[in-house]
Amino acid sequence: MSRTLAALASFLVIASIASVIAQSPVQAPPKTPTGFSQASAEAAARFEQIMIDTPTPANARKWLAALTEEPHVAGTPQEKKVADYVRDRLTEFGLDVEMVKYDVFLNHPRRVSLTMIEPTREELSLVEDVYPQDKDSTSRGQFPAFHGYGASGHVSGQLVYVNYGSPADHESLKAMGISVEGKIVLVRYGGPFRGLKVKEAEERGAIGVIIYSDPADDGYMKGEVYPDGPMRPPSAIQRGSVQYLSIQPGDPSTPGGVPSIDGAPRITRDQMKNVPNIPSLPIAYREAEKLLRNLGGPRVPDAWQGGLPFAYHIGPGGAAVEMSVLMDEGLKPIYNVIATIKGTTDQVVVAGNHRDAWTPGAVDPNSGTAAMLETARALGAAVKAGWKPKRTIILGSWDAEEYGLVGSTEWAEANAAMLTDKAVAYLNVDVAVTGRDFSASGVPSLRDTVREVAAMVPEPIQGGTVGAAWEQRLRSTWAAAAPVNLDGDNAEFELQLGRLGSGSDYTAFVNFLGVPSTDIGFSGSYGVYHSVYDNFRWMSLYGDPEFLYHQAAARVMGLLIMRVASADVAPLRFTGYAQAITDDLNDLRTDVLRRARTASATPFLPDFSTIVSALAQFKTASIAADAASVSVATGGDAGAAARMSAALTQVERAFLDRQGLPGRPWFRHQIIGPGLTTGYAPWPYPGVREAVEKRDTAMFEAERTKVVEAIERATAQLQRAAAVK
Amino acid sequence: MSRTLAALASFLVIASIASVIAQSPVQAPPKTPTGFSQASAEAAARFEQIMIDTPTPANARKWLAALTEEPHVAGTPQEKKVADYVRDRLTEFGLDVEMVKYDVFLNHPRRVSLTMIEPTREELSLVEDVYPQDKDSTSRGQFPAFHGYGASGHVSGQLVYVNYGSPADHESLKAMGISVEGKIVLVRYGGPFRGLKVKEAEERGAIGVIIYSDPADDGYMKGEVYPDGPMRPPSAIQRGSVQYLSIQPGDPSTPGGVPSIDGAPRITRDQMKNVPNIPSLPIAYREAEKLLRNLGGPRVPDAWQGGLPFAYHIGPGGAAVEMSVLMDEGLKPIYNVIATIKGTTDQVVVAGNHRDAWTPGAVDPNSGTAAMLETARALGAAVKAGWKPKRTIILGSWDAEEYGLVGSTEWAEANAAMLTDKAVAYLNVDVAVTGRDFSASGVPSLRDTVREVAAMVPEPIQGGTVGAAWEQRLRSTWAAAAPVNLDGDNAEFELQLGRLGSGSDYTAFVNFLGVPSTDIGFSGSYGVYHSVYDNFRWMSLYGDPEFLYHQAAARVMGLLIMRVASADVAPLRFTGYAQAITDDLNDLRTDVLRRARTASATPFLPDFSTIVSALAQFKTASIAADAASVSVATGGDAGAAARMSAALTQVERAFLDRQGLPGRPWFRHQIIGPGLTTGYAPWPYPGVREAVEKRDTAMFEAERTKVVEAIERATAQLQRAAAVK
Repeated sequence: MSRTLAALASFLVIASIASVIAQSPVQAPPKTPTGFSQASAEAAARFEQIMIDTPTPANARKWLAALTEEPHVAGTPQEKKVADYVRDRLTEFGLDVEMVKYDVFLNHPRRVSLTMIEPTREELSLVEDVYPQDKDSTSRGQFPAFHGYGASGHVSGQLVYVNYGSPADHESLKAMGISVEGKIVLVRYGGPFRGLKVKEAEERGAIGVIIYSDPADDGYMKGEVYPDGPMRPPSAIQRGSVQYLSIQPGDPSTPGGVPSIDGAPRITRDQMKNVPNIPSLPIAYREAEKLLRNLGGPRVPDAWQGGLPFAYHIGPGGAAVEMSVLMDEGLKPIYNVIATIKGTTDQVVVAGNHRDAWTPGAVDPNSGTAAMLETARALGAAVKAGWKPKRTIILGSWDAEEYGLVGSTEWAEANAAMLTDKAVAYLNVDVAVTGRDFSASGVPSLRDTVREVAAMVPEPIQGGTVGAAWEQRLRSTWAAAAPVNLDGDNAEFELQLGRLGSGSDYTAFVNFLGVPSTDIGFSGSYGVYHSVYDNFRWMSLYGDPEFLYHQAAARVMGLLIMRVASADVAPLRFTGYAQAITDDLNDLRTDVLRRARTASATPFLPDFSTIVSALAQFKTASIAADAASVSVATGGDAGAAARMSAALTQVERAFLDRQGLPGRPWFRHQIIGPGLTTGYAPWPYPGVREAVEKRDTAMFEAERTKVVEAIERATAQLQRAAAVK
Repeated sequence: MSRTLAALASFLVIASIASVIAQSPVQAPPKTPTGFSQASAEAAARFEQIMIDTPTPANARKWLAALTEEPHVAGTPQEKKVADYVRDRLTEFGLDVEMVKYDVFLNHPRRVSLTMIEPTREELSLVEDVYPQDKDSTSRGQFPAFHGYGASGHVSGQLVYVNYGSPADHESLKAMGISVEGKIVLVRYGGPFRGLKVKEAEERGAIGVIIYSDPADDGYMKGEVYPDGPMRPPSAIQRGSVQYLSIQPGDPSTPGGVPSIDGAPRITRDQMKNVPNIPSLPIAYREAEKLLRNLGGPRVPDAWQGGLPFAYHIGPGGAAVEMSVLMDEGLKPIYNVIATIKGTTDQVVVAGNHRDAWTPGAVDPNSGTAAMLETARALGAAVKAGWKPKRTIILGSWDAEEYGLVGSTEWAEANAAMLTDKAVAYLNVDVAVTGRDFSASGVPSLRDTVREVAAMVPEPIQGGTVGAAWEQRLRSTWAAAAPVNLDGDNAEFELQLGRLGSGSDYTAFVNFLGVPSTDIGFSGSYGVYHSVYDNFRWMSLYGDPEFLYHQAAARVMGLLIMRVASADVAPLRFTGYAQAITDDLNDLRTDVLRRARTASATPFLPDFSTIVSALAQFKTASIAADAASVSVATGGDAGAAARMSAALTQVERAFLDRQGLPGRPWFRHQIIGPGLTTGYAPWPYPGVREAVEKRDTAMFEAERTKVVEAIERATAQLQRAAAVK
């Protein structure tokens, strides 16, 4: 359900204009790849060439057409068919494949309706327009509008419009003297993850939630609409999960890190803490317009105005609706397809992509699946050509990601001990392609490897390499925004990976297990997210007509897997990690000082100094560890390399705390986590950040202690690595 | 034609929300007013109380109703009637009044038409809708859409949409490979002054320009539209001048600082350098929509999308128009009404407001005129009560401001010698009221006095004082935006006046003559700028229904006039001046470094160090001068006070350079000026800034020298002031 790429799209349009004027040379990557000796690098080169040569646009196109033949929502027979298809392809490519089934709690809509009852009675549409030129828009087998994990219910009432439905939006509403209690909240998509919109409304006493797609966010204000362009047309509906993603993902019937294996203890729906209790529905802007035009009450603050052609009002009054949602819910089977290439050591690298989709899912997620199949085909070819990876490669084709990262989470929970012990990295791809702009998020220790492989892949249309185009774009953004110091001493641009939030399958790996993770893709203008128009026609006309970026994505993923699997020493680097998390802390400290400047009463000015000190020691240790790791990779024996790999691999684990984050113990990473109230967007230092949000001194002190201890554990682990000989 | 206030309006809506959470106490103003001895301050207090007590909302309402009875465009008999009305009122108030007539070059529309000729033929409307509930919307005597100083012409051609029509927009267009040569350019209002949109299009080979008001900028996306709200309805047209305001304002037939007195040498229209040669017309968004919907070509960059409900395209192709503009142009009479209150010394203070309007002009400018009449009435009352100002007060009711600041410019040019010698300040009000948010722009030397008087005037609705609300709002904005230094040593908030650009009558005073100037007003949601709906009904329903802010504006202006007129020593302070222009220089230096970071080729990194050094000396001198001025005011005799006043008054003059700015010699101030390509928006250090924009090293060095010399002259003048005994 990757939303990051979609959110990046419009931003990148601007950035790409800026890049025209920012042509300073890109830093050359180091000659010997991270973690490799020169000899190993030379030996690997032949197989890496196979990864460059093997993936083809034609194959990616073929896989995508097959994968998106029908809508394939998790728990449906159609999705089982797609699982079988993927299993068969991976088997053909020569990999060891197994199908792993879990029974997990899911819902499908049985009956949904939404009727405007004031000022006039009109039933609103919960299905999308059919375009004759688009076979997939005929909605064959397509569910109508509903929310994954949405509650059943029948409610009617006045509407109140609350912008994106964030806590800040609700606070603004409260400051205006308007309550949502007993009302149905109308919010637009964007900002927080949709489940957290429902959570916020429910906690404030709303009886139902309608979420619509505003044309200002991904409709006509961002470009030509489907079927004439890539953006959201008036009838398109954004389906999606309303799980409380930042509290806990995975099967809600087996919380607390328990895998949904046979015989697992289960809780009932009313015991679940991470799903809503009030009904919600997604609607299209053509339907939302009917409601918004009639809303009374005060005019919205400027920032709440969307792209419909009239002045928005907040309500209540003027418009009321009746909503009726009846769900078919219970345990349903989901299928992860797991393919393995055995390595020569006992470490593993996992790469994954989800397969289930709300609709045909040509973008989300099957552009990733198509690319991943090409990656797998090339890996098979390399093995046939004699390649022997040092680390075992596990490819996961996850199911039920859309409901709440369910397939990957249950698998990671089921394999927690093995992964904790052996996993060097988890490499994710969700949406692989909506356009041309490469981006990568991940833990900072994988930055160098991602950068090195991106620099090896040709940029299909603009020329140069994917890595060069990526760095150039980030550099332009940095140049326009980074502070200027008139007294000189200005920081140089340094490429960093985007920070991981949540919303895709890396979550269980990094946040629950402390496995270093990345997430990559190519983005562009994409407005049909989670609608029936996210289909093969869209991709063929707007997303990647020549499938060149699918090929590029397959290459990047494949090289990344190969490098992590083949390196003499696990290719994790920590000086950049120290810099990145120091930057993150400084951003938080800056935010605190800024808030203090505007504070109404006593400013909340907590003391970060113990974290600052801990980071300084972490930095010192990281320099030593990186130096030792280079020395072992280039001059050490296999035993030293194995010890170094094991030591480096455990650094990320050291950031975990068994208590987890406040109120969400499943999230154990103390430095990386999704925002409690954002879901998608990252909150570095999530516990400390939550305390800042809540101005809670006791929480701050407790969370600061956990952070300092986590950094100290990581520092100690780096020192152990530095001592490896 | 003040646009600053309108542009501030939506910004201030946000700022006012922020202000709710920013309640830190406002710094108390000093007890003894700037420039006064304690005894003089006590003596002045009685008369200042008259200025607080005299203005009434009822009178302001009455004056506004009378002033806006009819549209009163400069050069029409209706405007002469309004001039007579103002003269009669000022006479009634006991002031010495004269009517000063100039014959100046003006145009009125004789025949205008605009026809869409592709894809279908349709004549577009150039008049506004009539609303039965609004008598003034019947357009009695109202000109149809036209541009002041717009050229006559008959052209037809394909349209190209170029966003706001700024140089940067045209450069983006060029980068997309689209030319405007031989095309008719369609641009929206906002950004650069409208005349500079036409200038840019003309220089790039366009044959005509259509400027429309986009609903994203001041229509429904900013609030409810007229007649149900304050924002721009679909048929409303923004008239206005297309003079090349940043090149030279005033009567285009007498350029070069020559006043348009009888017998003045005149040039013909084709000799004029500051008016367009291609025809242009303003249109409403209802009409623009018909063109934009049909435009072909590529989709616009995101930032070019406006608020009409479809994806905008650039063209050319899809839509073509025929435009026909026939102007009645030539010398026409304009009338400044000049009222005087004699002072006891030979210094003068000028306060002014324009009177002519494109339409009834209840906001622009007659809210200012109504307030000014109440100020004048209170000044008359104070004189009757025995008040004797030290400085002669001149009140100017200017004509033909809308065409290009014509009345004030010609008067200032005619009185240049007197003003250069004697004028302590020029205090402007254009639009006095569109809402509740006070703002003030001006030279930094007048900051303390403006702040002191704003703190004396009650805030009519929100409570407290106008000054407190103003400071609070600026503080919130600062808190949200000012950089944070994590190592401590963070700057405190310091109130500064907004910088003067151009677009109102202070221009001749500050930029041509070096007279310290201010411009004040209260702003809010205002979308009917220069349309027929800028009328009495609008003001009574949306702008200031109780006329309380007209009263407040009258009080602020009156107290400002009184303080400048009565102070023992001219109330000009220079330490804040040094800080403000150092900030401005640092902003420019930051911008240069930021541009260098994104530069494609050789970065343009000019050397500002001689300016930095000159400013350091200016700062030192300013501290000494301010101290000496306090000492003379509180302990000096009348002779010393007069010498100090004369010395301080000449500091601003020292910033003038007889060469003026590059290509625009009439603009003589080296530190303050309107942007060459912005018109309204200020460019501090305008010559140096232009060199930076053009990456012109020779120009930079020449302009830097002029700036350094200007600062050195000002420093020397401050040293002279510091030596006064």
